[in-house]
Amino acid sequence: MPEPKRPSEFDLIARHFAPLTQGFPGACGLRDDAAVISPAPGNELVVKTDVVVGSVDFLPDTPPGLVARKALRVNFSDLAAKGAVPRAYLLDLLLPPSFEEAWVAGFAAGLAEDQAEYGVHLIGGDTSSTPGPVVVAVTAFGEAPFGRLVRRGGARPGDSVYVTGSIGDAALGLDVQRGTLAPPDAGTASFLLDRLRLPRPRVALGPALIGLANASIDVSDGLVADLRHLCEASGLAAIIEARAVPLSEAARAAIGADAGRLRRALTGGDDYEIVFTAPPAALPRIGELSRVSGVPVTAIGRIVEAAPGAPLVRVLDERGQPVRFASEGWTHFGGEPNS
Amino acid sequence: MPEPKRPSEFDLIARHFAPLTQGFPGACGLRDDAAVISPAPGNELVVKTDVVVGSVDFLPDTPPGLVARKALRVNFSDLAAKGAVPRAYLLDLLLPPSFEEAWVAGFAAGLAEDQAEYGVHLIGGDTSSTPGPVVVAVTAFGEAPFGRLVRRGGARPGDSVYVTGSIGDAALGLDVQRGTLAPPDAGTASFLLDRLRLPRPRVALGPALIGLANASIDVSDGLVADLRHLCEASGLAAIIEARAVPLSEAARAAIGADAGRLRRALTGGDDYEIVFTAPPAALPRIGELSRVSGVPVTAIGRIVEAAPGAPLVRVLDERGQPVRFASEGWTHFGGEPNS
Repeated sequence: MPEPKRPSEFDLIARHFAPLTQGFPGACGLRDDAAVISPAPGNELVVKTDVVVGSVDFLPDTPPGLVARKALRVNFSDLAAKGAVPRAYLLDLLLPPSFEEAWVAGFAAGLAEDQAEYGVHLIGGDTSSTPGPVVVAVTAFGEAPFGRLVRRGGARPGDSVYVTGSIGDAALGLDVQRGTLAPPDAGTASFLLDRLRLPRPRVALGPALIGLANASIDVSDGLVADLRHLCEASGLAAIIEARAVPLSEAARAAIGADAGRLRRALTGGDDYEIVFTAPPAALPRIGELSRVSGVPVTAIGRIVEAAPGAPLVRVLDERGQPVRFASEGWTHFGGEPNS
Repeated sequence: MPEPKRPSEFDLIARHFAPLTQGFPGACGLRDDAAVISPAPGNELVVKTDVVVGSVDFLPDTPPGLVARKALRVNFSDLAAKGAVPRAYLLDLLLPPSFEEAWVAGFAAGLAEDQAEYGVHLIGGDTSSTPGPVVVAVTAFGEAPFGRLVRRGGARPGDSVYVTGSIGDAALGLDVQRGTLAPPDAGTASFLLDRLRLPRPRVALGPALIGLANASIDVSDGLVADLRHLCEASGLAAIIEARAVPLSEAARAAIGADAGRLRRALTGGDDYEIVFTAPPAALPRIGELSRVSGVPVTAIGRIVEAAPGAPLVRVLDERGQPVRFASEGWTHFGGEPNS
């Protein structure tokens, strides 16, 4: 029997991706060399790109719809942390020679699901082949009022440090997935795994940070590492109370009394929460924002002047003693982040 | 001896990529979660993304600076074909574990060279690791007057079909590189190889097509294939005179009297020229444009109504007989393009 004919990239685009541009005329149905996008009057475009790689960032048996949705959401999380509203995205997809069209169909179905959830559209991309693993590169476009973006570098001494939602679930979920953490019960395991597999970027809360937060960053490399990025950009330091860091019921159950697991929660990646700083006077408005958005927001520490020789982020335990970390967050290439 | 410490992605970004953002404040020196970009008043943003993969799109021993420059230029070619002026780009770079920092340095030097040549800036990106080959995904941003983009779908019956520069050099250069074409002399070989390795996108001519061309597309998959895309989008067909298609001296020398090589030139990819259509009355202005821009522009055929059952692009030889092609252009996954 002849080998079944592989679909060309034109087939894949026409069948699975062109329909995702519906409602965005500037995408020209993926039938042109380039797409057109402009911010609404008074706004500017905010752009972010992030790549996920098969066998590095997701397992080969991860459902393709989840791969697609996570690839979108990690970008939307960055936009949200800046106060921007997601609007559109470009997609580069590299497929190995062995790919099956059903995988692409499932991948596109995941995109469609999140397009509906976030009100965004596919506006362009590139589909090609690779001798390596699947590669998904997303470039996300958001909008924010002109000149009002919440930057990493705006923190001020005396600011309170806040974090949304809960921290450490995804890192503990990764431990569960790897079999290095035996969760106390099935419900805990499934909650932690779900937090790993499908982030919920804080897109509803993010835009409300404009005019409220002095500095902000999304928590993707790990709370300590990302807060250090914020401190570096601001030329300041932070002191965090470990016991104040919000943990889910599941994380508490998984951590128990294991100090190593707690450190793991504070430094593990993939939370896709927002850590931000705001002056003490903003407290009532932040409480109101949390109520209105339905997103928990927790004060976890404060911004201080950087002291020569001291780490930019100091995490204190219940006795006020510094918690020491072997590694402060996820890096590629196995290198340690700059201190 | 301990293994030398690998640079982290933070090291690579700080040393090689952050300097490339200088002069573009919205990039925030790559020290934030996202970049900001907006078109000038009266303009809109035009976006295009394209991925190149090591061992698929370039050989492992290709100098990294050339990899970088070609990755940028293929995107600028699409922008130029739409009438847009390149302005900025995002870069996703995946590196295998064995990468050497000198490769990254050479790659960044190539980017710097083309930033100077095209007046563009790096504004963001993602650097990560892969078990597969090097992957370079570029998203390019251009600007064009609002609503004036030259689309693929605007051709009209009776339009003349024009192409810039010369066609087929890169495809013949690929044959030289593969050793399947023995060029008549070293000068011919080096010209054809250079055309393959470093495209010259028509960025100076492109913006002048606004208000002049009815439809336009860049020639990347091959003249016949790309013109077919234009015809599909326009709901029309094209008739091309093979002898009118502009060939370089080197291509003429390499082709000689070999009809197969001529077909290869007409269908091979990587030309990065522009094929466009314009009404006959535009001829004097197109001649003037060619003179002013210094880019040869050649009339090669005309746009006609599509006939049921006939190919959308008919190429006629010197006796007016249709030239037949086994393949009409480059596709990924080995599939044939839709007809």
